[in-house]
Formats: sequence, C-alpha cells, structure tokens
Amino acid sequence: MNKGGIIVKRVSDLHNQRFLEELKAFLSIPSISSKSEHKQDVQEAARWTAQSLQRIGLEHVEVIQTDGHPIVYGDWLHAEGKPTVLIYGHYDVQPEDPVDLWETPPFEPVIKDDKIYARGATDDKGQLFIHIKALELLFEEYGELPINVKLCIEGEEEVASPHLPPYINENEEKLHADAVVVSDTSFIDKGQPAICTSLRGALAMELTVKTANTDLHSGTYGGAVPNSVHALVTILDSLHDSSGKVAVEGFYEGVPEPTEKLKKEVAEVPFDEERIKQELGLDALYGEEGFTFQERVGVRPTLEINGVTGGFQGEGLKTIVPCEASAKISCRLVGDQDPEKIYELLMDHVKKQCPTGARAELIKYIQASPVSLDSQDPMIQTAAEAYEKVYGTRPLFPKEGGSIPIVEVFARVLKSPVVLMGFGLPSENLHAPNEHFHLENFRKGIETVCDYYEKLGKQ
Amino acid sequence: MNKGGIIVKRVSDLHNQRFLEELKAFLSIPSISSKSEHKQDVQEAARWTAQSLQRIGLEHVEVIQTDGHPIVYGDWLHAEGKPTVLIYGHYDVQPEDPVDLWETPPFEPVIKDDKIYARGATDDKGQLFIHIKALELLFEEYGELPINVKLCIEGEEEVASPHLPPYINENEEKLHADAVVVSDTSFIDKGQPAICTSLRGALAMELTVKTANTDLHSGTYGGAVPNSVHALVTILDSLHDSSGKVAVEGFYEGVPEPTEKLKKEVAEVPFDEERIKQELGLDALYGEEGFTFQERVGVRPTLEINGVTGGFQGEGLKTIVPCEASAKISCRLVGDQDPEKIYELLMDHVKKQCPTGARAELIKYIQASPVSLDSQDPMIQTAAEAYEKVYGTRPLFPKEGGSIPIVEVFARVLKSPVVLMGFGLPSENLHAPNEHFHLENFRKGIETVCDYYEKLGKQ
Repeated sequence: MNKGGIIVKRVSDLHNQRFLEELKAFLSIPSISSKSEHKQDVQEAARWTAQSLQRIGLEHVEVIQTDGHPIVYGDWLHAEGKPTVLIYGHYDVQPEDPVDLWETPPFEPVIKDDKIYARGATDDKGQLFIHIKALELLFEEYGELPINVKLCIEGEEEVASPHLPPYINENEEKLHADAVVVSDTSFIDKGQPAICTSLRGALAMELTVKTANTDLHSGTYGGAVPNSVHALVTILDSLHDSSGKVAVEGFYEGVPEPTEKLKKEVAEVPFDEERIKQELGLDALYGEEGFTFQERVGVRPTLEINGVTGGFQGEGLKTIVPCEASAKISCRLVGDQDPEKIYELLMDHVKKQCPTGARAELIKYIQASPVSLDSQDPMIQTAAEAYEKVYGTRPLFPKEGGSIPIVEVFARVLKSPVVLMGFGLPSENLHAPNEHFHLENFRKGIETVCDYYEKLGKQ
Repeated sequence: MNKGGIIVKRVSDLHNQRFLEELKAFLSIPSISSKSEHKQDVQEAARWTAQSLQRIGLEHVEVIQTDGHPIVYGDWLHAEGKPTVLIYGHYDVQPEDPVDLWETPPFEPVIKDDKIYARGATDDKGQLFIHIKALELLFEEYGELPINVKLCIEGEEEVASPHLPPYINENEEKLHADAVVVSDTSFIDKGQPAICTSLRGALAMELTVKTANTDLHSGTYGGAVPNSVHALVTILDSLHDSSGKVAVEGFYEGVPEPTEKLKKEVAEVPFDEERIKQELGLDALYGEEGFTFQERVGVRPTLEINGVTGGFQGEGLKTIVPCEASAKISCRLVGDQDPEKIYELLMDHVKKQCPTGARAELIKYIQASPVSLDSQDPMIQTAAEAYEKVYGTRPLFPKEGGSIPIVEVFARVLKSPVVLMGFGLPSENLHAPNEHFHLENFRKGIETVCDYYEKLGKQ
C-alpha cells in the first residue's frame, strides 16, 4: 500500500461518504460524561461504539459497565507472531456550554469547507473513528489484519477517567500490548504532524467560600459583614504573583529546570506570536516571566481558574452581600510534581489567605501524574514514518500542554510505549464552542493509520 | 381615637382577615422590575394598586405609563386648611433568586407564626399597604380624611427609579405637600420603632473583562494567554485594602469625618454583636478598620461586590481558560460624595489595575445622591408621637445604611420634609430568600398611621 494505491483510493471515492454519515451519527449522540442528565446518552454512545467494532469484524466485543460510564472492549488476535497494538480512545465529550456561542447546534453535525462541526468532532470521536475505519479498510483489503489489535474505549476521559485505572490494573494481561496507540492530540499546524512525547499531569478542584447563612441587603449590612465574593477574589488573586508565577508555597518543587537541550527541542516547535494573537483576538499574550510561549504551554506547570460564580448574576442588579461563592481551579503538573502533594499545599494556602469571617473549602475532583515518552522508541519512529509517507512531512515531537490522565496509567501498568498519534489541529476549538475537525485529516488519518499498522506487520 | 379605641378594634376584629387576603393577592403578583420577562406582571401590580386606591375612595386615580414601568397616582384633597401629605411607596419587588433557598414559593404568600412570607412582604408591598388600609379605616370612621393626601406609587424602586425623577420635576405643583411620608425602612428591633434620618447614596455598576475571542483549552493555552477570571479577580481584589477600606484613589473625598455628636447619636442605636453573629451564622463581623458596626452600616461609604460570574460554572469540571467574566458592584455613598465623580474614579482605577492582555469595561446602572433629614422637623416629631402612642416606645432616629434614591429627589424638588416611617424589621430577609413581614407591625402600623394623620389633622 502506498499513497495513491488501493486504500487511499477507497477512502476518497467509495467510502468517504458512508464514513462521514457514520461519523455524523456518532457525533449526534450528546455523550457528555460530566453531566448526570446525559447518563443515558453516554450509554447510547458506548452501545454505538461497540456495534461499530462488531460490524467491521472485531471479536470479543463487550460493553463493560462500571460505577460510572462503560468501557468498550474488542480485539482481533489472529496475526500470529506479529506485534499487538492496544488502541485507546474515548467516546465521551465535553459539555457544550456556552451553547449560545455555537453557530450550529453542537449535536447536529454540519460539514462546511471540508470541516465537520460538532462537539466531539476532534476530541475525540473523529480521531477515534479514524482507527475504526482504518481497521475496516484493512479487513476489506486483506480479509484479515496485518497485526493484532485490542481496542479499549472509555466514556470518562473528560472527567479524568475515574474507573479505567482499576480496570487496567485488573486486566493487565488481557490488555498487554507492544504499544498503546492514542489519537487524541494535535498537529503543530495544518500540514505539520506531531507525535506528542510529554503530557502534563492534572489536578482539578472546586473552591467554595461561605459567609452568612443567607444573602444580606447591601444597604443594611454592606461594609460591616464579610462578603463571600470579596473573600473568594482575595483568595483567587493570591494564587499568582504579579509576574505570572503561581504563588503557592512549594508549588514548583519537583519541577525540573529546563535544560539547554529541552529548551532547544521546545523551541523547534514553530511559534508565531502575531498570528496566535490575531487568531485568538488577543492584544497581548501573558504568562510566567522568564519563559517562552512554548515552554509555558509545554514544560511549565500552570494553575488556571476555569470558572467563577457567586451572588446575583441575572439581568439588572440586586444589591446584596452574597453569602456563597465558588470557583473551579485546575493545575497542569510536570516532572516530579505529585498531584496529592500540590492539593495539600493549595489547601494550606487557601486556609492562610481566607479573610476574617469567611469559611473556605477546597474539594478535589481529579488528579493525574505527569508522563514523559521517548521519541526514539521504534514504535514511535515507525508511526513517524507513516505520517511522513502520507503527509510528505516528518512529524515533530512536541511537549503537549494538555493532560490525558490515563496515558500515565497505561505506560506504568502495561510497561508499553504510548504512541500519541494526533490528527487534530490546535485551531479546532476543542472544549470550546464550534468545535470542528478537518476532514482532510480524517481521510489522511485513516491512510496514515493503515500504513502504520501495515508497516508494523512487516517488521 | 386612641389605643383600644374604635380603629384599633376594627383592625384586629373586623378587618384583619380581609386585609390579609387582599395583601396576599397583592403579594402573589411577581412584579419583579429588573426582569424583562415580568413586564406584564409589573403592569398587573400597577393596575391592582390603582384599583385598591379607587375602591377605598381616593380620587383622580391614574396609572401613568412611562418608558419603563408605570407610576400610580391618586389623591383626596377636601380637608380644607389641613396639611397635605404625599405618600410614596413602591409595588415592584426584588428578584426571587436563589429560588431554591425559599422554604415556600416566593409568590405564594403563606402566614406562619403571625408573619407573612413572600417576596415583597416587607419591601415594600406590606408597608405600602399599611397606608392604603389606614386611609380606608379613616374613610370608614369619619366619611372623610382628617388631612389631604396624595399617593405616588412607583414600580421601579428596585431598579433605582429611572422614570420617577422626571415625573416629579414636571409635576412639582401637583405633588406639592407639607410632608412626604415613606414606609420602606425598618425598626431597630422588634418593639423598638425608628424614623430614619439619613439615607446613603448609591452607585451600581457592572464590570466586564474580556480576553480571547473564545474559551480556550487550559491544557493547550493555560499559563500562556490572559485568563479573564484571573484579570477580574485581580481588579476586584484591588478595590479594598487589607484593612477593609475602599482602595480607590479619591473615594473618601467628601465623606465627613464623624463628629463626636454623630458618633454618640449612632452609638445610641442598640447593637449586640453576639446576637447579630448568631442570627447571620457568622464567625466574625468584618469591615473598615477604626469604625463601629453602626458607623460602618450607617455613616460610612461602602463598596460591595454583589455577584460574580465567568467561565464554566456547571456540574463537574471543564478545563478552559475563560474568555469573559463579569461582576456586579455597588457603592453606598455619604456626605458630599458625588456618584458621577465616584464612577469616574472607579473607571480610572479599573483601567490602572487591568492586567496585560485583558480589556475591562465598567457600565453604570444607577446612581443616587446621599440625603440627610432633620429629626427635629415637626412633621417627623408628630410621627414619633404616633409611634409612641401605639408601641409605647419613642422611636429612635438612626442613620439607615440603605438607599431609597427617590427620597433625595422628593426632598430637593418638593422642598418638603421626608418622614421615613418604617414598619419592617431588620431580620425580615429583604432582598433575600424567605422575605417576610411581621403581621403585628402590619396591624400596629395601620393604627400608627391612622393616629399620625389624625394628629396632623388636629394641628
């Protein structure tokens, strides 16, 4: 198989239309894992995923129920003496809010300018579907697969995979593979593929501040009783210093000083400040002093407030002293930063900064350790060759700022290299309104994955 | 008429049940002036108020449409040679949020332990209704009124009366009176009446901070782009210093240094710190250093954040860098503080404090100047005598922390003393869930008002 050969022809001519109709059906299921009212939709997406595995010829297909959302498993293990690849992806999606900023409804997929618009288009249904369709084409072409495959697809990635780690721990042998392949990351830019070799850890929390037992009239009590929003903004503002550094004592312990080699590697990822500012509608970028944009998003830890709420937020005004306010906070961690330790440091910090008369509580939602991968691993290098063949460009090996908490678990428990074969673009609004996926990368992604698995089968 | 006489008997025996049924009907109308979806309800409350004036025998009853909500007018001017009183009140109410904290639905009035629970019960429908029912009893008793009365009842008090000042200015002669009587304030405590002699001014605003043109993935961009919530909390936290003082340059210009006389007067208002803390469920009170609780709520200016919103606020988590966040802010002003000037100072302050990469906008909703009244005015002293007769206790003359913006306009345009005859209690949850009104003060309020108008008629 090569570019212009049978597989490539089939993706563009015969299969493309049907594949897109199937992808649209997948994207129409509002499988938002973080919202309890979508529990049945998440189940439906799991069922849909399992059926799509069964239909192409995978075996032992199961929908495994957990205390949260189900795990979908399937395999094909008849390529004797050939490598085994575990394909991981997720069928759950981010919430659609703020829904009024979507140009078309988030769960009614629309194709425009060779891009498909829907929540989950790039993160991760579209990318996951690349693998399923690549396997389908390989089955069609050869009546079998060039390698052994296992698929493990979860519905809780967007809520930090609470139930997958125990499943992996209990099924080490069942899931054992020569490589774990994940398509849930991004290119550097259109036409410039990337295989990510580092993922930051994560720690997500909710901070709640309470004062009086009810909202009070600001005319009667204002200025003389604690105000929960004042207390909250005091605590939140204390989390960073004026140079953009996280101001929580001990936060940077375990963060490696960037070596000259790492700085050089990071600097190789192209970066155009003016273009980013223009794309994002920003007057200026902003971050930790002494580090470049690429370092800030790739190898430095961060603390971001993801949302804040408290008091009256409706139309017009309501002159109250609000009694409760809260914020969602998340950290990205690197090196030897331990999420459990960071959480404790944050609890101490919040306690110290909480003003008189206010009571603060910090609840942990999720935590994940950072992970680092070796770009020289043969499983990663072979993937790079497949990209080069299809795209005509060798992928870069960037340090990704995001977290896929389960990657660290796969690497640690299965002791396998993890190959982060992303097909998204950074501009595709993942986690934001108008999420989309470039169909060029859907088609070429299928070709790349076919070529990768064929290459692995020939080694 | 005296305590135990005809009027008092009628309130308790014959009329009480009917009056309460009428008050319940009034309170059932969700006349929330700040929410556009309640526009028709506000109209309905105006119509209801006008009918209740007509029914008791008032003349020239009108529902005067404005560009906002209507003004209701009515009068009775046949007491030749007797004083004329202009009664002001408002039929609009605060929003009901947070509605899930109400023990009974806010617009389904319920009587429990001789208190009536509903939005508007004490602020101001219940207090306004005292005057309407007092006039009804006087008409019944004498076939006429002992004084001339004019009623001017608005539907925009809770949104700072945007359309009443031009109406007052254009109808100076029509509204002219020897005193303006307002029942929209509170007792010091159960059994201790108060006639408020000072109202703080008000300035209410919304601060909005924007960064990128969309929410961004915190893994991809966090730590390297401006975060609207970070910028907002930095600005908000800069509004006060650590001693509780407002930290906006020039804010305290025009604020009179409390004289020894004023400090003494303010200190006369009883204050029980332990009881207030217990009632409000607070560990500690908090406010501007160097001032007492009574000074903080009565004669000092304040700046309170009434609400804050931004980014993801739903269930669970969403790891974004939010692109927009906002806060509602309101000030209480005293002395010669000019709301227009304070607004300009705040705009300068926000501009200076706004971090790199963020754009802040401060919009003004309402403004009102502070007002001071002379407790020795005969119209106020006569009201005090009426209270003393009915309650057996002489009222105190506190400095009220709240703002009734229109009071300053009445005092300035009509050049009349304003008598703030409150019948609420500070514990009645005005502007908060489970607002209520003590029916003892509804009944005794009617008696007090009857006695006041009779006393004025005899002078």
